[in-house]
Amino acid sequence: MNSDLSHAYAVIMAGGGGTRLWPLSRREKPKQLLPLIGQETLFQSTVKRLEGLFPPERILVVTVEEQAHEMKEQAPELPDENYLIEPAPRGTASVVGLAAMALRKRDPLATMAILPSDHFIRNVDLFHYLLKAAFDVADNDYLVTLGITPTMPSTAYGYIQQGAGVDGGYKYPVYTVKTFKEKPSEETARQLLRSGDHSWNSGMFIWRADAILAEIRKQMPGLMDALDQIGADWGTSKQLETLVKIWKDVKIETVDYGIMEKAEKVAVLPAGGLGWSDVGSWSSLFEVLLPDMSGNIATNAVSHLALETNNTLVYGGSDRLVVTIGVDDMVVVDTGDALLICKSDQSQKVKDVVEHLKKHRQEKYL
Amino acid sequence: MNSDLSHAYAVIMAGGGGTRLWPLSRREKPKQLLPLIGQETLFQSTVKRLEGLFPPERILVVTVEEQAHEMKEQAPELPDENYLIEPAPRGTASVVGLAAMALRKRDPLATMAILPSDHFIRNVDLFHYLLKAAFDVADNDYLVTLGITPTMPSTAYGYIQQGAGVDGGYKYPVYTVKTFKEKPSEETARQLLRSGDHSWNSGMFIWRADAILAEIRKQMPGLMDALDQIGADWGTSKQLETLVKIWKDVKIETVDYGIMEKAEKVAVLPAGGLGWSDVGSWSSLFEVLLPDMSGNIATNAVSHLALETNNTLVYGGSDRLVVTIGVDDMVVVDTGDALLICKSDQSQKVKDVVEHLKKHRQEKYL
Repeated sequence: MNSDLSHAYAVIMAGGGGTRLWPLSRREKPKQLLPLIGQETLFQSTVKRLEGLFPPERILVVTVEEQAHEMKEQAPELPDENYLIEPAPRGTASVVGLAAMALRKRDPLATMAILPSDHFIRNVDLFHYLLKAAFDVADNDYLVTLGITPTMPSTAYGYIQQGAGVDGGYKYPVYTVKTFKEKPSEETARQLLRSGDHSWNSGMFIWRADAILAEIRKQMPGLMDALDQIGADWGTSKQLETLVKIWKDVKIETVDYGIMEKAEKVAVLPAGGLGWSDVGSWSSLFEVLLPDMSGNIATNAVSHLALETNNTLVYGGSDRLVVTIGVDDMVVVDTGDALLICKSDQSQKVKDVVEHLKKHRQEKYL
Repeated sequence: MNSDLSHAYAVIMAGGGGTRLWPLSRREKPKQLLPLIGQETLFQSTVKRLEGLFPPERILVVTVEEQAHEMKEQAPELPDENYLIEPAPRGTASVVGLAAMALRKRDPLATMAILPSDHFIRNVDLFHYLLKAAFDVADNDYLVTLGITPTMPSTAYGYIQQGAGVDGGYKYPVYTVKTFKEKPSEETARQLLRSGDHSWNSGMFIWRADAILAEIRKQMPGLMDALDQIGADWGTSKQLETLVKIWKDVKIETVDYGIMEKAEKVAVLPAGGLGWSDVGSWSSLFEVLLPDMSGNIATNAVSHLALETNNTLVYGGSDRLVVTIGVDDMVVVDTGDALLICKSDQSQKVKDVVEHLKKHRQEKYL
């Protein structure tokens, strides 16, 4: 592998909201801005994870106005002009297009890695190795995605079915993509796991800016028209005005279904051992944090006294003493104004709580 | 029944500490001073329960200095001089003796009901009826105790085995007492329940002041000597000085084992349907509070959002929102500086927590 990364950029997608980590995550404090694992926020860890691969000036962040200020405080090493502010959320396809357009303006040879801002990866060395391998494949005009080798029949992720191997002399196995599949039922998930040729869709993509824009032109001509209009004024005094004007009519679409599904030259690098998690629910923290001998996890330096307690996570946002007696397989999240006690295998229902709070206009808890 | 209650006094025993309702009950805020059930504290309910049976001037409270001030605030209707301050806790036998001595000084014909300050009784009419019946029996020099007809094989209470019926023309069934039994094992408790002739020891006693003092003289001559010395200065300027001096050498003993076990003329009135509880653990609140259709109880007007939650008690001391998902048979106690989450059937282990906190000198939580 002889990667030349001098035209490689990282684009961190960081504008999301999300409700699955309530009561810690709130409207004003979305998941990526929280120190869920250790002292750093997920956003900070995402930036730090790129050290040694990209210099700060080649790391971009796409986010929304409400979050930009906090992000600049959390990652002061990134140049101000590398924050792309989306006037309003329009789905990942449009974000990808906007970033590709902006990067091509800056560097006609730009290649880019699209990276979520709120995921966890334990094995950073392997992550770097895989990204380099992916850039090699992207250099040959592939739209590349990192697949995560499943470790359980998860119904929380989309799946990618791999096809034939791509013979390009790459050091890491590369496959064409047969299909992208939506989150499956539990039975289907078990079949996919057994099949051996399915990966989880990690939301990490690597491609040449040129290549993805060509694909957008082919499959989403409306979005490309918008990007052309925005691009015409990009870097001029009318940049913001035009962006805001055009952006409001852009159709909301995801990169998976808007672009990847029908693209022809798509490749997947299936990655095992990355220690990846999308930190998509409280129970996912059991995968990324180290439990004690009883399977318990006390995060955030909470004072937890555990009697006859097993496989229980206590996330303490306040400095109270938390005592559990006879508690198994539970998640306890103790914040200033709300307390969540949730059976681990039902932590996906946290979003129902948020729906309930919205419906009953309990704004202060949102 | 033609009870003459003009010489009848109630003596509320209110000096106890106790750790089984931590983290709500603390050193400075023992159980009887807490509003565990509804708006009133258990002490206030105990006083109120006597309305219509005893005028305030015939209700005495025996307590310790640290609690007296708060009690006077909670029950301002009781005359100041009706608070007997124990210089230090010396067990129920000594308290009973002190109260009997003081009452006999006040009224040589005094009869007295000894009543714990921290129990719950749902059926107040029946309670009045039983007390009147008990005073009738006590008038004939019996040491009377109210037994509680068991509703389950509890290991948390002592038991009283009844003997032959007492034929005195009483309207309510009265039995001699065969034995007092300590808290049994679970297997023994089941046998006692099946036997049909065992009651729970409620700690409620009714007798003539004269009669109990005679029994103390017979069985605890040391205590009686002390009471005689205290009595000699009672009502004089040396009352407090003498009490403090003598009290410190009084042997700690309970009324059950120090007096009742070996007394000859002991009677029990077994009471069913009283809706009695000693509120001796968090799980006991399930017996005295009314759960919703899922068996959940949200006390203290706590804001509780319950999803897939059953038979769970949430006691909110703060004004936070408490959300439970997939939680069964649990007790949640949410106070300012400590949070307890405890499987209902293990709530007796709360005292182990308090032991642990003492051992590790975490004074602020005690």
